[in-house]
Amino acid sequence: MGKNFHERLIRMASGWFYLSCLVLGSLGSMCILFTVYWMQFWCGGFAWDGSTHTFNWHPVLTVAGMVVFYGAGSLVYRLPQSWLGPKLPWKLLHAALHLMAFSLTVMGLVAVFKFHNHNHIANLYSLHSWLGITAVFLFACQWFLGFAIFLLPWASLWLRSLLKPIHVFFGASILSLSIASVISGINEKLFFVLKNATEPYSSLPSQAVFANSTGMLVVAFGLLVLYILLASSWKRPEPGMLTDRQPLLHDGE
Amino acid sequence: MGKNFHERLIRMASGWFYLSCLVLGSLGSMCILFTVYWMQFWCGGFAWDGSTHTFNWHPVLTVAGMVVFYGAGSLVYRLPQSWLGPKLPWKLLHAALHLMAFSLTVMGLVAVFKFHNHNHIANLYSLHSWLGITAVFLFACQWFLGFAIFLLPWASLWLRSLLKPIHVFFGASILSLSIASVISGINEKLFFVLKNATEPYSSLPSQAVFANSTGMLVVAFGLLVLYILLASSWKRPEPGMLTDRQPLLHDGE
Repeated sequence: MGKNFHERLIRMASGWFYLSCLVLGSLGSMCILFTVYWMQFWCGGFAWDGSTHTFNWHPVLTVAGMVVFYGAGSLVYRLPQSWLGPKLPWKLLHAALHLMAFSLTVMGLVAVFKFHNHNHIANLYSLHSWLGITAVFLFACQWFLGFAIFLLPWASLWLRSLLKPIHVFFGASILSLSIASVISGINEKLFFVLKNATEPYSSLPSQAVFANSTGMLVVAFGLLVLYILLASSWKRPEPGMLTDRQPLLHDGE
Repeated sequence: MGKNFHERLIRMASGWFYLSCLVLGSLGSMCILFTVYWMQFWCGGFAWDGSTHTFNWHPVLTVAGMVVFYGAGSLVYRLPQSWLGPKLPWKLLHAALHLMAFSLTVMGLVAVFKFHNHNHIANLYSLHSWLGITAVFLFACQWFLGFAIFLLPWASLWLRSLLKPIHVFFGASILSLSIASVISGINEKLFFVLKNATEPYSSLPSQAVFANSTGMLVVAFGLLVLYILLASSWKRPEPGMLTDRQPLLHDGE
């Protein structure tokens, strides 16, 4: 496949791709800003002293890490620029963005553990926490396996092409689990803070509408990431690699 | 592509596919049975009188409908038998299973609305309910669009092949949203029923461990469905249809 052909492909895919990136960037920023605003305006703002204001870092850092930065990092190879030339710089960017996402997430976990321990609240009892910690554990495995197989030079092309679809599938799965964790977390938090009789969650006070909408924004962002990730016309073409369909043509006809 | 070649393909894919189906069937049954057992043993069983026992149908019917039957219905075209011969009977099976899934889900919604209305509890205030109702609404759109485009005879092959990846993507997305709804629903229910000081959710009584595990089972089932759905070696080969990769080869070389 020639260079001109690749350039034509890139131009074709670029238009829609950049429009999607624009929407994605706006949605991602809104997810983080809305969470910050919720925590700042209704839940008393931020601190690092073990109080409930320490907890407030948890939603912000996990939404930023496990959803927004994770989502952005996942889409590196969908940038048409990454289709040409050496792949190594893009791999480094992919790994670096996910390391950043992972670091934000770990700080988000530290915040909630610190708050719980300071106030003698049990850790890891709710289904939200079980699912969330599973997502973070899988993310850690995924990052280290990805680093060992796709970034270090020892693995063969055969092993890499065998593991790549699994890597992509688990990448998408971890994002889905993160979204489920975020939804259950927002839901749980609202039942905690809106339990007084004058302004219960069920009367949909402004905080409830705002936080519910933040949850729906996270879902919209996640689905758009998954769409861009799995929409095959934006995938880097790999002329040397056998695709799923090509062997059928060669063997069968 | 000859018949022998197709048969060889089917034999190759069949082994692993049937093993996955076995695991899938077990996981799916366990999801439903665990939910029934939770509602029967800890929440007082079932009724249709507007009491909390009416509510108990809600988790059972929505897990059965939006997750288990929905998941089973999604995988019809992954059955190697469906790869050969006319597609219409498989389309009818696909539509029928999803109609069954949709009916179970609607009954699950009726149960919770009946319980709420009978007890003067507001409907559709929690993020769980917002996300759940969005998933059901998208499911309804998906079913009717699928029926109109892929089952009724008027749509052209061109329109069908344009919409098919979108249909598959939304199918997978709706399942992901359902799983997020189920997780937030189980989490919410446990905070409702385990709020007394002697046995709070945070002390992880047996009900909490059991229901949390049911939630994790639902996640495992959902991920396995998505894996089988998106693992391309189990897709029905379509020799007449242009794939994403083939035009690259024809145009570029």
